[in-house]
Order: sequence, then C-alpha cells, then structure tokens
Amino acid sequence: MSALAPAQPGMPVDEVDTPALLLDLDAFEANLRSLHDAVRGLGARVRPHAKSHKCAEIARRQIAAGAIGICCQKVSEAEAFVDAGIRDVAVTNEIVGAAKLRRLAHLARRARISVCVDDPVNVVDLSQAADAAGVVIDVLVEIDVGSRRCGVLPGAAAAQLVRAVKNAPYLRFAGLHAYHGAAQHVRDASARAAQAAMAATYAAASRDAIAQYSIACETITGGGTGTFLQDARSGIYNELQPGSYIFMDADYARNDWSGMPQFRQSLHVLVGVMSATAADRVVVDAGLKAIAFDSGLPLVADRPGLEYVKASDEHGVIAVAAGTSRPVPGDRLRLVPGHCDPTVNLHDHIVACRGNVVEAVWPVVARGAHW
Amino acid sequence: MSALAPAQPGMPVDEVDTPALLLDLDAFEANLRSLHDAVRGLGARVRPHAKSHKCAEIARRQIAAGAIGICCQKVSEAEAFVDAGIRDVAVTNEIVGAAKLRRLAHLARRARISVCVDDPVNVVDLSQAADAAGVVIDVLVEIDVGSRRCGVLPGAAAAQLVRAVKNAPYLRFAGLHAYHGAAQHVRDASARAAQAAMAATYAAASRDAIAQYSIACETITGGGTGTFLQDARSGIYNELQPGSYIFMDADYARNDWSGMPQFRQSLHVLVGVMSATAADRVVVDAGLKAIAFDSGLPLVADRPGLEYVKASDEHGVIAVAAGTSRPVPGDRLRLVPGHCDPTVNLHDHIVACRGNVVEAVWPVVARGAHW
Repeated sequence: MSALAPAQPGMPVDEVDTPALLLDLDAFEANLRSLHDAVRGLGARVRPHAKSHKCAEIARRQIAAGAIGICCQKVSEAEAFVDAGIRDVAVTNEIVGAAKLRRLAHLARRARISVCVDDPVNVVDLSQAADAAGVVIDVLVEIDVGSRRCGVLPGAAAAQLVRAVKNAPYLRFAGLHAYHGAAQHVRDASARAAQAAMAATYAAASRDAIAQYSIACETITGGGTGTFLQDARSGIYNELQPGSYIFMDADYARNDWSGMPQFRQSLHVLVGVMSATAADRVVVDAGLKAIAFDSGLPLVADRPGLEYVKASDEHGVIAVAAGTSRPVPGDRLRLVPGHCDPTVNLHDHIVACRGNVVEAVWPVVARGAHW
Repeated sequence: MSALAPAQPGMPVDEVDTPALLLDLDAFEANLRSLHDAVRGLGARVRPHAKSHKCAEIARRQIAAGAIGICCQKVSEAEAFVDAGIRDVAVTNEIVGAAKLRRLAHLARRARISVCVDDPVNVVDLSQAADAAGVVIDVLVEIDVGSRRCGVLPGAAAAQLVRAVKNAPYLRFAGLHAYHGAAQHVRDASARAAQAAMAATYAAASRDAIAQYSIACETITGGGTGTFLQDARSGIYNELQPGSYIFMDADYARNDWSGMPQFRQSLHVLVGVMSATAADRVVVDAGLKAIAFDSGLPLVADRPGLEYVKASDEHGVIAVAAGTSRPVPGDRLRLVPGHCDPTVNLHDHIVACRGNVVEAVWPVVARGAHW
C-alpha cells in the first residue's frame, strides 16, 4: 500500500485529496441491515464476497452484522484477510498449480478454508497439498448453473466429481458451489428471477444425483446482489455470497429492483476539476487508473447537466450541458463508478465518511492480490 | 507494493506465478533502440512518458538509452520517480489545489520539475507555492491542439497565458505543451499524419503569437507513440514524449505503421488455465483486475484458435475453435493487453525475462500513484 493516504480521520470531506474512494458510512450500514433483514428466517447464511471491497475492516463489519465469514477469489486475497484476523474464508474459485495449492493448504492451518473444484486431476493435487501441510481442506464442487464459465455440468457429472472428492483422503466434501454470475445483471426482475430459478433447479438436481450415493450436500452456496433474495427463498441455497450490495454501482442501478431491498449508493469516487478551458466541458483528475470502465462510464452524482463522457489514463472529460453552471478548477465532484469491484481494486484506501467528516481511512489490504 | 512477488530472478518463465506481467527484454531493448535511431539528427529530444510503465528501472534504462528525463502525469507519480533517483521530470498535466501544489513545489527542491498550466488562477497559485518552497518552477503552457481535453486555445489565448506566467515571480516560462493524445490511435497512417501536422501548425501559431511579445519558446513538447516521427520531422516540436513504444499493445497494433519503426510487442500478461470443463472454452485466472479492457479485449499470443471472449473480475473465458487443441488446467498462455498503460497499473511487479529465464523482477513503484 502506498504510504501516502488521501485523507486523515477528522478531516472535512472537502479537504480529502483527489481522486479518492469515499464510503458513506450511513448508506453502507443501511445496506448491511437491509440485506440481513431481507433474508432473516429464510434459512440461508450470509457469506459476503470480499472481492468487492478487499478491505479487512469492511469484512469485520460484515461479520459483526451477522455474516458467517467471507468469500475470496484468489489465494493471495484469502491470505490478506486471514493475516487481518478473518477466520473463515471460502475461496470461490478453482486453484491450480503446485505453488498456489501449497499456499492454500498452509492457510488452512490458520483458518477454516474451503475451495472450489471442477476437475478430477485438481482434486488429487489439492488432496496431496493438504496432506503435505497436515490439514484437511473443505471442498465445494462447482457446477455450471448457466454462466458457462467454470464448473462441471449439473447432475451426474457433479455426482462423479463429488465421489472423487470423497475418495481423496485429505479433503472433506462440503457441498456445491452454484453461483450464477451472468444472472446478476439481467435487467428485468422477472427474467432475472427465472434465471435464478433455473440455477436452483440445477443445484437441486445435482444435490439429488449426489444423494443417490448417500452423500449429503452440507452447503449449497450461490446468490449475488442481483438474485440473493430469490436464492434465499428457493429452499435450495443455504448460503449466499453477495458482494456489491454494500456499495452498489451504476451498472447494478440499471437493474429493475422490484420486490427487493433498495440498496443505497454508498461508494463514490471523489474527483477534482483540473481544467476548464471551454464552455462545454471540464476535465477531472480521474480516468482509467482510478475508475473501472468495463461496465460503462461513471455517473456524476447530484449535478444534473454534467456528464462524464470520455476517459484517458488520468483525465476524465465532463460535458457541461447548455445552461448548466460550469465547475471551476479546484471544484470537486462525486462519481458513481460503473462497476464497484474493479474500481476499488485501483485504490489503496477507502475514505469512510459520516456526513461531511472523515471518520476513518481503511487500507484496501487485498488490492492487487490476484495470485 | 505487495510483499509477494510472482517470480524470482533466475527462475524459468514456466515457473512464474500467474497472472504476471512479463517483459521480453530483447524486444524492449530493440524498441528503445528503434525509437532513438528513428529520431537521431532530427533535433528533437526524447522525454518518454513514464505513465506507461511507472517503473524506476525502466526510466533509468530509457535515460541510459538517450532520454533526457521523463514525463509523469501526477505529483505522486513524480514523487515516486524522484525518490528512485530520477532528476528531471515534466508533469504533463495541470496540478490544482493547495496540497498538491505544495508537494509539487517541494519536489522541485530535489529535481528539475516542470508542470503544465492552462488557467491564470492556477498560475498565481503555483507561483505562490513555489515562493513558499523557495524554488522557481519551470512552466509549460498547455495548448489544445485538437484533443479537446485540457489546454488553452492556440494563438492569442496561449500568448495571454504565457504573459501571465512571465509575470509570476516564482515561475519560469519553459515552453509549450502541445500533445495531441487523440491523434495517436488514428488507424490510417496518412490521416494520423494529417492530425499531427495540424497540431504542429497550432503549436507554431502559438509560438509565433508569443514571439510578438519577444518571448521565446525554449521547448515545444508533444508526440506520442503514434505520431512521434511526424512530430520530430515537423521542425516545430523539439521534445517528444512517447510512452507505449517500449511495450506496445493490441490497440496500437491496429494502427497502420507505414513509414514508421515497427515496435515489437514486449509486454504480455502471463495467465494460467484454471478450468476446462467444456469442449469449446477454457477459463484463465486473469480478468478485470489484471488486464485493462478500455481499448478492447486482450489477444492470445501464438495460439491460433484461442480467443479471449469474456472477462469477469478474476476470470477470463477463452473460446477454443473447433479443431484447436484445448489447453488443460495448469497450462499457461500469454496475452497481449488491449491497452498497456492501465494494465501495468494493475500490477505491482514487472517480470523482466531474457528468453525463457527471469532476469529481474522490477517493482512498479508508481502503481496507484494517482494523486
């Protein structure tokens, strides 16, 4: 992490250096409550995905709010969180290669670790790494419930791989990973619910195929910010792994949220105007290296008539509509990023604010942890 | 910088952990030579843009190859390079706000620093910061030569701002910043040359307008990887600031390079296959957090029939064409990123290789330095 931080606790938000990631603590805390309120009594545990925030303090607050642990996507990400004191981490991904498997197995000496598999050779390699480290590792068999990414086919193929896990001496079969990433951003609420329902059907069929070998699925996990409530109500999933609900972003805001909690936009990129030489535009100090653009351009919050229209490495061009008061150099704007997860990964700090005051500056401990 | 590095010197490339940024040193060194060979005798100094690499060791090698110093885009980026021993840095950007100006002025105590301005209020603020730090700062007046981003209009407006700089007691007018970013990626060579020629005309008109006040433009700087040769031959520019030429990327490769040096692709993202459960695809361990996607998808090097088609945070889906040998988990692929600069900014290390052996692992010292 860079030694330089954009803010100090107690500072007014107006003095935070730009660009900086601002977290509105009131909105963040409301989002934590909304999620747990929505799923209470539905029989599904909450294990939020820490890839969204990569921040130990946020993980601690999620656990304090009722989460049972966290998800990570990479071994080094899990290492960063275990180093920070988190004791229950599911690595929701396949981990391949001797070096990574050795690190994963060593991590299981210090925390409860589970990991996904979708390949029988990987099952053997993982068991050997666990043996070498003197641990038994919990394993989730990943099934492809519609995203066409990782995972074996549901049903018989899943059952075959579960049997391989059961036969591996240093692994414990813990259940199914049945996350449907592609469904989360389906705009129409009923179309999204239909995809979630299909994923639950695939998960149930896999569970039943596995039961034919008298093997129980302790955990069936899935459910992102877009489908978690449908998944919790399915009667199939008993663990949920939403990530973006704490922050939200411009892309998730384009979903139809009918029948679901209305999460608040708690995360903004604070930017500074650095150039204003034309009537119809200003230039801000945040471009491709401070905001992720994979899910579209950021939106300018609370300033109608201003539109972020073009990014280069460290510049963002803001179009100023006719009749709109044009910002001047030194003015600040708050941007809603298109996609929160890769945006957070561009920053070393999250500046946590209460109203107009900086309450804390949290390191993004797993920033860049992609091994 | 993360304490974890993906490689150690002396290691075979086959053992480098994934994802990792690989630099082919033979290609990198050939690119350094090609640039200096192309501009030799044309009267233009080379001041490469360090925003592309953010790496002190690369800056040192650029200077050893004949560069007069480097460009940076942010104060914190310049600080990282000055801390690493670089003694001549042009900040090719407007720097706004008391905190940043104070840091910039303090940096000018330790190195030759120049900075861009396009606003008379900023000129006053900058001069006051220089006074407070006991320094005189070199200033480049930025003109908009066609990119419609920062910069004053060429000609009379530029001359007016130059006069303000001349009147500021702690600033020294050093010349014009006339970089045409938008021209660099114009595909057709003659259309690109036409835009570069227009930029040179605007720069010359500004120089002449300034000369009416008996003020000389010591430096006229511009010229990126796409137009540097045209700019060097213009007779107008006497300083060039290409960045990407050392690495190249998939987007620059789509340019028509007729009449220019053929830079080699020296930079790849080494990725590992982590899932292969379907005949027509595999999944690699690098997505939105290891590769920039603003200029299109990465290309798979040297493996016809494999195409990177979809990214999520830490996954990349590779389509496998019919009849193509499908990789298996643990296999490695080399990807050519769409855009080199923001891709490098996602990594803490550059793994410098000679043939199949890791020669060095260089920290990306200014990674995330966006203040």
